[in-house]
Amino acid sequence: MLECRTPLETYDTITLGHGGGGRLTQELIQELLLPAFRNRHLEDLHDGAVLRTDHARLAFTTDSFVVHPYIFPGGDIGSLAVHGTANDLAMCGARPLYLSLAFILEEGLPVEHLRRIVGSVRDACREGALEIVTGDTKVVERGKGDGLFINTAGIGAVIPGVEISPRRVRPGDRVLLSGSIAEHGIAILSVREGIEFESKLVSDSANLWPLVSGLLQVGGVAVHALRDATRGGVASVANEIARTAGVGMVLEEAQVPVREEVRGACEILGLDPLYVANEGVFLAFVAPEAVETALETLRRHPLGQSARLIGEVTPDHPGVVRLRTRYGATRVVDLLSGEQLPRIC
Amino acid sequence: MLECRTPLETYDTITLGHGGGGRLTQELIQELLLPAFRNRHLEDLHDGAVLRTDHARLAFTTDSFVVHPYIFPGGDIGSLAVHGTANDLAMCGARPLYLSLAFILEEGLPVEHLRRIVGSVRDACREGALEIVTGDTKVVERGKGDGLFINTAGIGAVIPGVEISPRRVRPGDRVLLSGSIAEHGIAILSVREGIEFESKLVSDSANLWPLVSGLLQVGGVAVHALRDATRGGVASVANEIARTAGVGMVLEEAQVPVREEVRGACEILGLDPLYVANEGVFLAFVAPEAVETALETLRRHPLGQSARLIGEVTPDHPGVVRLRTRYGATRVVDLLSGEQLPRIC
Repeated sequence: MLECRTPLETYDTITLGHGGGGRLTQELIQELLLPAFRNRHLEDLHDGAVLRTDHARLAFTTDSFVVHPYIFPGGDIGSLAVHGTANDLAMCGARPLYLSLAFILEEGLPVEHLRRIVGSVRDACREGALEIVTGDTKVVERGKGDGLFINTAGIGAVIPGVEISPRRVRPGDRVLLSGSIAEHGIAILSVREGIEFESKLVSDSANLWPLVSGLLQVGGVAVHALRDATRGGVASVANEIARTAGVGMVLEEAQVPVREEVRGACEILGLDPLYVANEGVFLAFVAPEAVETALETLRRHPLGQSARLIGEVTPDHPGVVRLRTRYGATRVVDLLSGEQLPRIC
Repeated sequence: MLECRTPLETYDTITLGHGGGGRLTQELIQELLLPAFRNRHLEDLHDGAVLRTDHARLAFTTDSFVVHPYIFPGGDIGSLAVHGTANDLAMCGARPLYLSLAFILEEGLPVEHLRRIVGSVRDACREGALEIVTGDTKVVERGKGDGLFINTAGIGAVIPGVEISPRRVRPGDRVLLSGSIAEHGIAILSVREGIEFESKLVSDSANLWPLVSGLLQVGGVAVHALRDATRGGVASVANEIARTAGVGMVLEEAQVPVREEVRGACEILGLDPLYVANEGVFLAFVAPEAVETALETLRRHPLGQSARLIGEVTPDHPGVVRLRTRYGATRVVDLLSGEQLPRIC
């Protein structure tokens, strides 16, 4: 009996030819990419998408993803790319609308892995009401890449009346944290190091827009800045905001939620959870009078159940983040020099 | 005597730490990236840029660049990325406005190379009146990348009244080619293979927007589709358009301009110039009554001096591109199966 295989199915792995712009590239697009993302923009097979827009302010962001391994507990590089870019838009106070999707594939990548990851991109886009409207695929020789890298750029519509910027952070603002921390970094590291923990640790990778959207609806102008605590964790992004805004910050260690098994894993691995990457947690800098409402709103959403008030912005020590420890001492939480965990996103 | 070196200057090569989100990442941004691209969007050090726009239609595109070697005669991966993305927007009939810039650096990349390439991005942006408004930097371990890869996504404003789409191509349309072909591919290959030719062959990498802009001003609605002849060359993009539009196409070999030294190099290398990549040449599909004006307009611009009428769109043989050779025979110009030249852009 004859087996019917489509042209792409005759390949088990990606070859250099899939990036050459010829028949193999067309087959990859027609058989794997278009069916996943079919929409009016992609069907034009044009060099770019033409978007009709009546939004006065658009947010625009980009991120490359090089996470290793590219499939991990709680997600893969595909869902991570969609969530990460949606979150960068959300942190600008913008509803995520359109994404670009660019692959750099390494020769020899199993086509099945690519298919799975494209499926994750598709599912994460559907869940977030996002459209992939333009894309690109390149292939590099074996040993010149690492399976696959993804770049997603995103366009979102900034919510009218909302003005989110690190420069709006001012002394007296309260620092809210949307959830428990360090779960993405520890999930990646546990696979990478082959460590098994009693309970399975999974990445917190999630699209934060629904949570942010709720916050902006009630918080509005009282929300001064938002920042998702990705690479470098809560400590690093708090430092970035403190420097950009020229303010100080005091965080309360006892208020920072860390799940018990994550804390245990951090201790075993010798990591400070404050520096471990998250992909579904953000900091919000909110005017003091709006704190109660903001917290209530966050906690009503499944992603924000563990939301806490963790600190305050101060006029003194501009550019410096301090931590009041459980034992009442205060120490400076500085930027790490290099990286704690390479290729975490 | 004490030498004053800034923190970044104490590093000769990129380390994993430069991608970790900590102090080294900050130094890379503050010392190398921000000074090159300083503008109001980047200075906010936000997760994305907020753009005010009153354009009804925006074009959005993305491209990753993996060209090898990353410095080549006539440009480098930095200028190529800006030109390539500007051209994709131009091919949508859009004035290029904003770019994102994302690097994937390999540990060990000389900082001086990065500095040169960032300089090329800056210069190409200035020349094209483009702004880098958001960016990202990742670092992968030695042997998991290849020096550096760049992704640029771009946003442009579609010119009012203009409607450019492969689907608008119809039988009777004339096919114009904006310049002589195969120069980018041959320039890259000559360095890669260490071949010296009598006259130096340089890439044609260029921002095509000024040329396209002129064409649209006079051609307007008579310009049905535009496509830059990058990866896979004129032959591949003609095939793409024929398939998308469901039309046939006949090209005249004698009318396709190829510079003498490029033709010689192609012969030595055993390459058909029709399949060799360009980075500063495009095809325009134009209504017959507008051909003369369109050609005159193209030829008035330095990038369009060699513009020619090279063929016609036919109702028969839909999806097929045929070439009438110098000797009067007609042959089918198909998509190549794989790639002729990997990592050409």
